[in-house]
Amino acid sequence: MLRFYTLLFSYFALAVVGSISIAFAQKTAQSNIPTPPIQNLSTLNVMPLPQEVKLTAGKFRLASTATVYVGGGGHSRVYGAASRFLRQVSDRTGLNFMTEGYVTPQDTVKSSPIQISCRRAGKLVLGEDESYTLTVTPQTITLVAETDLGALRGLATLQQLVAADDDGYYVPTLVITDKPRFPWRGILLDVSRHFFSVDIIKKQLDLLALVKMNVLHLHLTDDQGFRIESKTHPKLHEMGSDGQFYTQADMRDIIKYADERGIRIVPEFDLPGHSTSWYIGHPEFSSGTGATFGAPYQIDRKWGRNSPVMNPVKEEVYQFLDVFFKEMSELFPDEYMHIGGDENNGVQWTTNPDIQAFMKANNLPTKEALQNHFSKRLQAILSKHGKRTMGWDEIFVEGVPKTIMIQSWQGKEALYKAARQGYSTILSHGYYIDLNQSTDFHYLNEPLPDSIKLNADERKLIYGGEACMWSEWVNSGNLDSRIWPRTAAIAERFWSAASVRDVEDMYRRLDYIGAWLEQLGSQHESNVPVMLRRLAGVNEDIQPLKTFVDVLETVKEYRRGQLIRFAYSTFYPLTGIADVVRPDSRTARQFRNLTTRYLVSLKEIADGGGGRSASGAIAQDSGKTEILTAQREAMTYWLNVWKSNHERLLPTMQRNPRLKEIEEHSLSLSLLAQTGLEAIDRLERGVAVTAQWRHVAGLIIERAKQPKAQTDIMILPAIEQLVKAAGSSAEGKRQK
Amino acid sequence: MLRFYTLLFSYFALAVVGSISIAFAQKTAQSNIPTPPIQNLSTLNVMPLPQEVKLTAGKFRLASTATVYVGGGGHSRVYGAASRFLRQVSDRTGLNFMTEGYVTPQDTVKSSPIQISCRRAGKLVLGEDESYTLTVTPQTITLVAETDLGALRGLATLQQLVAADDDGYYVPTLVITDKPRFPWRGILLDVSRHFFSVDIIKKQLDLLALVKMNVLHLHLTDDQGFRIESKTHPKLHEMGSDGQFYTQADMRDIIKYADERGIRIVPEFDLPGHSTSWYIGHPEFSSGTGATFGAPYQIDRKWGRNSPVMNPVKEEVYQFLDVFFKEMSELFPDEYMHIGGDENNGVQWTTNPDIQAFMKANNLPTKEALQNHFSKRLQAILSKHGKRTMGWDEIFVEGVPKTIMIQSWQGKEALYKAARQGYSTILSHGYYIDLNQSTDFHYLNEPLPDSIKLNADERKLIYGGEACMWSEWVNSGNLDSRIWPRTAAIAERFWSAASVRDVEDMYRRLDYIGAWLEQLGSQHESNVPVMLRRLAGVNEDIQPLKTFVDVLETVKEYRRGQLIRFAYSTFYPLTGIADVVRPDSRTARQFRNLTTRYLVSLKEIADGGGGRSASGAIAQDSGKTEILTAQREAMTYWLNVWKSNHERLLPTMQRNPRLKEIEEHSLSLSLLAQTGLEAIDRLERGVAVTAQWRHVAGLIIERAKQPKAQTDIMILPAIEQLVKAAGSSAEGKRQK
Repeated sequence: MLRFYTLLFSYFALAVVGSISIAFAQKTAQSNIPTPPIQNLSTLNVMPLPQEVKLTAGKFRLASTATVYVGGGGHSRVYGAASRFLRQVSDRTGLNFMTEGYVTPQDTVKSSPIQISCRRAGKLVLGEDESYTLTVTPQTITLVAETDLGALRGLATLQQLVAADDDGYYVPTLVITDKPRFPWRGILLDVSRHFFSVDIIKKQLDLLALVKMNVLHLHLTDDQGFRIESKTHPKLHEMGSDGQFYTQADMRDIIKYADERGIRIVPEFDLPGHSTSWYIGHPEFSSGTGATFGAPYQIDRKWGRNSPVMNPVKEEVYQFLDVFFKEMSELFPDEYMHIGGDENNGVQWTTNPDIQAFMKANNLPTKEALQNHFSKRLQAILSKHGKRTMGWDEIFVEGVPKTIMIQSWQGKEALYKAARQGYSTILSHGYYIDLNQSTDFHYLNEPLPDSIKLNADERKLIYGGEACMWSEWVNSGNLDSRIWPRTAAIAERFWSAASVRDVEDMYRRLDYIGAWLEQLGSQHESNVPVMLRRLAGVNEDIQPLKTFVDVLETVKEYRRGQLIRFAYSTFYPLTGIADVVRPDSRTARQFRNLTTRYLVSLKEIADGGGGRSASGAIAQDSGKTEILTAQREAMTYWLNVWKSNHERLLPTMQRNPRLKEIEEHSLSLSLLAQTGLEAIDRLERGVAVTAQWRHVAGLIIERAKQPKAQTDIMILPAIEQLVKAAGSSAEGKRQK
Repeated sequence: MLRFYTLLFSYFALAVVGSISIAFAQKTAQSNIPTPPIQNLSTLNVMPLPQEVKLTAGKFRLASTATVYVGGGGHSRVYGAASRFLRQVSDRTGLNFMTEGYVTPQDTVKSSPIQISCRRAGKLVLGEDESYTLTVTPQTITLVAETDLGALRGLATLQQLVAADDDGYYVPTLVITDKPRFPWRGILLDVSRHFFSVDIIKKQLDLLALVKMNVLHLHLTDDQGFRIESKTHPKLHEMGSDGQFYTQADMRDIIKYADERGIRIVPEFDLPGHSTSWYIGHPEFSSGTGATFGAPYQIDRKWGRNSPVMNPVKEEVYQFLDVFFKEMSELFPDEYMHIGGDENNGVQWTTNPDIQAFMKANNLPTKEALQNHFSKRLQAILSKHGKRTMGWDEIFVEGVPKTIMIQSWQGKEALYKAARQGYSTILSHGYYIDLNQSTDFHYLNEPLPDSIKLNADERKLIYGGEACMWSEWVNSGNLDSRIWPRTAAIAERFWSAASVRDVEDMYRRLDYIGAWLEQLGSQHESNVPVMLRRLAGVNEDIQPLKTFVDVLETVKEYRRGQLIRFAYSTFYPLTGIADVVRPDSRTARQFRNLTTRYLVSLKEIADGGGGRSASGAIAQDSGKTEILTAQREAMTYWLNVWKSNHERLLPTMQRNPRLKEIEEHSLSLSLLAQTGLEAIDRLERGVAVTAQWRHVAGLIIERAKQPKAQTDIMILPAIEQLVKAAGSSAEGKRQK
């Protein structure tokens, strides 16, 4: 009751003084999930990290009267970007920037505290200047760039610098001098296997711009769909898309939206293979035989290497390609056009007598030689229409002109080999974000390690890279969680210095960029409870299910299809456990790190405790013991949560038929946790484990290793470590 | 350890038998929020409720081999709807319906377990047949309808009937005979004050179709924006929209999408007032005076009654309207075109000498008379182009033709008056969902109460109603939470029998329809944590903030603008506490209901305890006491959560400048909770409260009544009830 009147007194006191000043204990709020401490404000929370930063001690205060003035000439991209900057900072801070709705060339108040100037409008081509200098003083923010593209990159940095203290919102004073390491920083989005609407594409463009990416590569055609309107050959999209395609007006809208954000749209038309969808309307362009050319073809509902392939020996095919690529060259302004070239299995060529005769007559002994013939003719057509050709590794063959751009999916060696021969290349091997790898796996995939023997000119031919979002297992429901926030780390690999590779700091900053990505519309986080609610059903508490999926990851690489015995199709429901699970379990990663550090601490204390340490060992050990205790407490907290989770989750699983597939996995998690707790207990008490215990622990671990519902339990390596340590520690004790 | 080996034994046992059968205690999972018990499966979880349902005891089992066959002729809407039905049920259940991707007219397997037939393609006009009969037996599901529109409505019911038991997913066997009560069931979406993309509109259409709505009324023009491309007068959208408008291709796409879902698109062009955006490009059509006609006009960034109004005395204006509405009549296929007509303040007419002279010459003494003159001419133009005119109450004046449709925003009396005079009407008064009213408020707003004196013919003239989503305070970030799930209850009011008005059952079913709405893309639930994370910042636990906002509602009616002293604009950041808060606090509502029931129980026991009850009173009272205990425990659980929440929330508030505005409110919540606990304690112990206690409680309550951050604390009425009861109970004791 005393407490109540203390509260009350403060309450009315504050009403008098008009401000809140109650001396509540400021203990940190407790949640189920321990949160890391708030970062030191002097630490930069920006991604990608700039090339050079000079931080000073001051603060530029953001006020609701803030405006932006754009100096220089008519660089239209900057006005839009500056307007978006104001709105996004307003949304974040609540500051009601009413003075200026849109930043426009008509603005006359040159005294704005935020000043942007750039010399010229940038050209949206490979290698354009994207550098900028950002200078923040307590009075002004000055962003200077050669091109408006550079100004856009600077604004992306500036918005991430907004911070808060007791007095409100501010930007720390600093000078940033920045430019990209690689000029080609992109992502491939496969819109053929699953289609994504114009709005979804636009949202991705907003997100890409935030992390300074500058290429969106649209994989527009494949066996599963032809996704762009052709006015010259309308049967292509009308019959090859199930009605899911971009009209040319849509595509112009996308291209304009991308241009405003400094992002190139590179279209891909995958040929001669991966092209079934072209032949629904035009079987005569396929290599099928007979009166119908193998028709009727059907839109492929499954995936893999497919047989339908374009006919490379018919002049009508080249006449068609000439007309079609003229049309597409006019629609897509980018210098590059991607013609695919991958994974032609050659079956239709082998079984077509005309093609076999042509190969003999023209001394083309292999399918590779014939494809090379096709590629050369296609490249000539593109060249005629003013485009450079881009393609996958397969187009890199003897004698191909050096104007092409090779995109390597097969490996880095292919990349360096091409560069040594004078070819331009970008890297995608190691950036296949459909394979459910962790963020650090992609982050540390360096296109140009120092160890690689390339001279300076050859190094310049490595233009950057692209993350690849193949969409076999991705639709609008889980797209964001597959791309984001992982791709932000890949963007940093392409933009920042090669030496920026501190994984822990990357993960720390990933939370900050993740928050901005979410604010700009990414549902990588928010869609998780949506999917959990659908799985759990109405009136179910989703927390136990969340606790469970939080330590899972979808099986890596190409295992998912194998596990369901290829019973997939375009119509496969992407709403299961493997879809809600994200590729990079934060909880499991943190627990694994914790376990490793704990075992190191334990070993250090054990080593020190044997009396072998030098003077000062006691003080040192006391600190170490405290650390060990904290580590053990954090571990046992989590292990107890998991140990009891199966019982908590069971009722929900029993009420939902589709959750049956995870019951065993859920039990495994509880058993692993129990095993982990026992291992810690034995380690700390220095008690030898029995052979029976090790046997049982081994069985549990082996069992848990089997994926269920196409997912793996990612704390498993940590439990294995603990069990092993408990075993060897006991060994050690026995030996002593 | 025993437990561990029990678990383990079960684990390996199950591996042998191949199924999970562990005897875990099936206690319900505990979460912070108490969940109501799972509903009896015989209870229908459908919204809107059908007119007639005969439930039987069987189950139709859903299998992954399920297919749909559509019989009858070429009713294209059904194929799309049946395909979507398969995908949505697949997404929900995980059943991989691979046999049939798209349901098409080419399907030849007539033995499908799901059979749909309809006699003819429905016309998308007012009053078209939307009835259907759905018969589910253990072997087949048969959906029969006169039109494909009826079949669509039946599919919406069917998908909501999917349920689960131990053996998998099923549909209960039943016969449903259903049709709508009102033929006009719509929503107005204001795309002028804030613009919404094509994708957002399409998503709303999906959601509307789920609850059997059949009209989307687009408020396309207003002072704040002209949102439709005009090819005849391109300056209208080019200069009046900030680039945010629907192209005609966009609109045709929307209309087609709506048609496929059986939804009419009714366009509104608000005239003669609410039309500033028209005059940016065409000042000559305004009633402004002088050489420039009052130009330059600017897109309005604020809102309210504005002065620019169309000039009703210039022939050029009617020539323009003739051309413009011809163009729009060709673009929009619906029979009705809405011309607004509301809130012309008449200022420009008063100050324009030509207009004053015209009024005198033509005996039009008032602005209403002049507007009537304008409306008549505009109606003649629409009629010439084949359209019926629709408008707000203001167009209902003496002598207006009976072909018009009146939309009443002013009140129900206006509606009945019009009907009595033979005019067609729909109701929007009471359905203004921008005013943050609770769901039951709208739900119980009956357009045609029995008490109203209208004859049968007059009753038929009340065609239904429209929810109105005015967008002053709504953008894409909070739109879904303003429309959904509340509008599902309004949809039920328009579709189901007038007698369906059980508020508790409506709220129960609202959770089920809410889950489906979420699955179809509504972010009414999922966007809450997104907004909370933005408010709280990176690495903050959002749970205390969520606990706090969960009992708030945004201030009702038009108070929000008043509270911020009209410092709003189109650019106002809609990311604050008042935006994340939803209009209808479930937690507060449940707590208020609980409090009411608790006080009734308490009174019953007190009355019974006095020895005045008949025989059997003891057994009865023992049951009552148990209920009372359960009620008290639930209440004190919540009150303790709220009591301690301020301390938990304080650190987050202190780290976020924009949360300063809620500190006092947060403290108020804790104090109210403390007061509530004390009241309960005194009530239960029968201790008299002191005058000092009542004084302090009164101060706390009065203080908490003041809105903060434009929100109200919705448990306040319950606390008031408790305090009052504690006071009067003490009075009662004193009197005895």
